[in-house]
Amino acid sequence: MQNEAVVKKPHVVIIGAGFGGIRTARALAKQDVKITLIDKYNYHLFQPLLYQVATAGLSVDDIAYPVRAIFREQKNVDFRLAEVSDVDFDNKVVSMNTGNIAYDYLIVAVGGMTNYFGMKSMETNGFGMKTLDESVTIRNHVLRMFELAAHEKDADKRRALLTFVIVGGGPTGVESAGALSELIYHVMIREYHHLNFKEVRIMLVEASDKLLATMPEELREVTVETLIRKHVEVRMCVQVTDYDGEKMSLKGGEVIPTHTVVWAAGVKASALMDTLDVEQASMRRAIVNDFLQLPNRPEVFVIGDAAHYVQGERPLPMIAPVAIQQADITAKNIRNLIRGKELKKFVYKDVGNMATIGRNAAVVHMGAFKTHGFIAWSIWSLVHILRLIDFRNRAVVFVKWMWDYLVYERVVRIITRQ
Amino acid sequence: MQNEAVVKKPHVVIIGAGFGGIRTARALAKQDVKITLIDKYNYHLFQPLLYQVATAGLSVDDIAYPVRAIFREQKNVDFRLAEVSDVDFDNKVVSMNTGNIAYDYLIVAVGGMTNYFGMKSMETNGFGMKTLDESVTIRNHVLRMFELAAHEKDADKRRALLTFVIVGGGPTGVESAGALSELIYHVMIREYHHLNFKEVRIMLVEASDKLLATMPEELREVTVETLIRKHVEVRMCVQVTDYDGEKMSLKGGEVIPTHTVVWAAGVKASALMDTLDVEQASMRRAIVNDFLQLPNRPEVFVIGDAAHYVQGERPLPMIAPVAIQQADITAKNIRNLIRGKELKKFVYKDVGNMATIGRNAAVVHMGAFKTHGFIAWSIWSLVHILRLIDFRNRAVVFVKWMWDYLVYERVVRIITRQ
Repeated sequence: MQNEAVVKKPHVVIIGAGFGGIRTARALAKQDVKITLIDKYNYHLFQPLLYQVATAGLSVDDIAYPVRAIFREQKNVDFRLAEVSDVDFDNKVVSMNTGNIAYDYLIVAVGGMTNYFGMKSMETNGFGMKTLDESVTIRNHVLRMFELAAHEKDADKRRALLTFVIVGGGPTGVESAGALSELIYHVMIREYHHLNFKEVRIMLVEASDKLLATMPEELREVTVETLIRKHVEVRMCVQVTDYDGEKMSLKGGEVIPTHTVVWAAGVKASALMDTLDVEQASMRRAIVNDFLQLPNRPEVFVIGDAAHYVQGERPLPMIAPVAIQQADITAKNIRNLIRGKELKKFVYKDVGNMATIGRNAAVVHMGAFKTHGFIAWSIWSLVHILRLIDFRNRAVVFVKWMWDYLVYERVVRIITRQ
Repeated sequence: MQNEAVVKKPHVVIIGAGFGGIRTARALAKQDVKITLIDKYNYHLFQPLLYQVATAGLSVDDIAYPVRAIFREQKNVDFRLAEVSDVDFDNKVVSMNTGNIAYDYLIVAVGGMTNYFGMKSMETNGFGMKTLDESVTIRNHVLRMFELAAHEKDADKRRALLTFVIVGGGPTGVESAGALSELIYHVMIREYHHLNFKEVRIMLVEASDKLLATMPEELREVTVETLIRKHVEVRMCVQVTDYDGEKMSLKGGEVIPTHTVVWAAGVKASALMDTLDVEQASMRRAIVNDFLQLPNRPEVFVIGDAAHYVQGERPLPMIAPVAIQQADITAKNIRNLIRGKELKKFVYKDVGNMATIGRNAAVVHMGAFKTHGFIAWSIWSLVHILRLIDFRNRAVVFVKWMWDYLVYERVVRIITRQ
C-alpha cells in the first residue's frame, strides 16, 4: 500500500481548453503526471479569428479544432467534456455536471466572456462575439438583414435593416468593422442587384477618443483613415446608453435606428469565477501571487483571462499571448513543486500588437518596429496562419484566403439554424 | 398602356433551389424572362454528400453554396428567402410568409423529405438525414455518444451508447454505414485511449433481402462483403417496428439497446405538396402529364422529387439526375410555350448508378459497365467533385479529401450548438 502511494502519479487537472489550458497540458507532455483537461466544448477555439466567422470569411471548422485530436499522441492527457460547477479547494475536488474529480494540482484557465457592464438592454438585444455560437449567430443575422432589406419597400425600415453598429474600438471592434465592410462592399454588392448600397451604414462606436488605444499614435491615425476609406463611420467619444433591438440611444440624445449592434466593448472572466471561493479584483479576475497561485493554495494556479496579475501599473490584458506565457511558467512551476525546487516568478514579455483592418490593410507594432499597409497585412496573415494549430487547418485556411484574396469571394454565407 | 403590356417579360417563378430549381433558372439565363427563385434556405445544398457532414468528413460549407452567389452574373434571376405556404393556381399567385407573388409560369421543384411511413416513435426518436441541420445534429450526437461512453463505468450502458444503427439499405444507408465505420475505426480509435472499440457496433438494417437494390447482383454482393470487412453488421430481411430512443424493436421480438438510429429508409415529397390543390400519387408526389405539367394547368410544371412520372413500369426515383433532366426539358418547354411552339415530351435517360462504401471502396454501374474497388472509388470521387457547384468549393473539398485520404484525419469533429 505504501509503495502504491509513492508510485502514484500526481494528477494535474486543467479547467479550460483555451490557449492557456492547451498550452499547459502540452508543456507537461514529458512529465510523469496524469493530466485531466476539462472543457464544456470538445474543441479548442482560435478566438482571435472569431470575427472572421461572424463576417463569413472563415468557416466554423477553420478556427475550431477537436481537443482529442490535439492530444492524440499525448497519452498522459485525458479529456472530459463537462461543465465545471464548483471547486472544493480544501478537499481538492472539482465538481462537474458529470461527476467529481480529485486533483493534486489545479489550473484554472477558464477564459473570458463578454462584459456588458450591467447594460441589460444591450445584453438582451445586442450581439456578443466570444463564442463560436455567438459568431455564427451574427453571421446568420447579418445575412438575414440583407434578405429582408432586398424586398422591403419602406425606405426608413430598409435603412434600419442596413445599419450595422459595432461598439468598441479595440482590436475586435476594428477588425470586425473592416471585415464587415469588405463583406458588404465587395461581396454582397454584386449579388443584391436591386439594393442601393448607398443606404448601407457601418458604424464603429468608441467611448474614448482612441481606436486601438495601445498602438502608437501614428498607427492609430492610419487605422481611422483606413476605416473611413472602407466606408466605416468612425464615432469616437460616444457612449451607448440603451438598445432595444431597433433603436440605439447615445449619451446626449442621439438615436440610431438599427437592427444590429455587435458589442465588442468589454470582457470579463468566465462566470465560474463568481462561484469559486477566490478573492476577485476587477472583471471577476482572481487575485494571484507572483507565481500565479491563489494565495494560501500553492497547488492552485489561475492563468489567462481569469487571472488578475499586475505588472508595471496595470493588470495584464485579456489576450492570448499572456495566457500562453503564463501556461509555460505554470507548467515549469508544477514541475518545480513536484521536485521540491524553488518556483519561478512570472514576468510578461510584450510580444507586440497587431490588428488587421481588411485585405492589404493592417497595423503592426513590435518594440521599435512600426508598420502598416500591405507589409503589416502580410505579417499579420503569416502570424495567424502559422498559429492555427495544425497543418491541416493551416493548409485549408491558406487555400481559402488565397482564393478570397484573388476573387473577393465568401462561400461561407449560408444561413444555418433557421 | 397597350404597348407596355406587350413588352412585359413573362415572369417565371421557381419554388425550390435544389438541383431542379437551380438548373431550370440557369437554363433560362439567355431567355427574355424574369425569374424569381424562392427557397426557405439561402443556399443550394448538395444533398448526395449530406452523409459526409453527418460523419464529420465534410464541413457544412463544403456542400452548401449561397444561391445569390450562383446567380451573381445572371441578372434576370431574383432570389427570395421565403417559405411558400400555398399557390392559387386559378389566379396564378404564390403565397409566401413574406408576401404574395404573381407568376406567368410556375415550376414546383420543392424536393423531398424523410418518410417514416407513419412510425411515430421513429420520427420522434430517430434521426432523419435530408437537411443540413439534420446532418449536423447526427454529427453532434455521434460525437457526444463517444464522450459519454468514455467515462461510463456500466458496461451495458456503454455498449448501448456505442451502438449505431442505420436503417435503410439504399445508397444513403450504405454510404453512411461505410463512412461511420471509417470515422470510428480510423479516427476515433486513436483518440479514446481508454475505450475498448470491441464494444462498438455499427448495424445496417434493411427490410428487403437486398442492399442497393437497383445494382446488378455482383455489385450487391461486393457491397455486403465490403461493409462486413469494415465491421458493419449487415442485417437484411429485418423490419424495425419501434424505437423509444433507447431500445429499437425488430419484428419477431428482437430488441437492440441503442441511442442512435439513423432513418434512411424512405423519402416522400415536401410537405407543401399536401397543401397544394394537386392530385397526388404515392409519396405525396403530384401526377403530371408527359410534359411534366399539372393536368389542365399548362403553365405549371412539377419536377424532381415532387413529380410522379411513370416511365416503363415504375415512377422515376427521387434522385438528382431525374430532377436535372426534368429541369432541362422544362426550361425548353417554357421557351416553347412562350414562342407558341409544340412541347417536347420528357424521357429519362438512365445515367447509371454509383455508391461509395468508404475509401477505396465503391460500386459503379453504367449501362454495361460494372466495376468496384479503387477504380470505382476514383470514378465516384471524380464525378462528385466535378459536380460540386463552383471551382472554389471543388478546390477546397479536393484538398480536404486528399489530406483525409493520406492521414485518415477528420477535423470537422466539433460539437456545435450545445
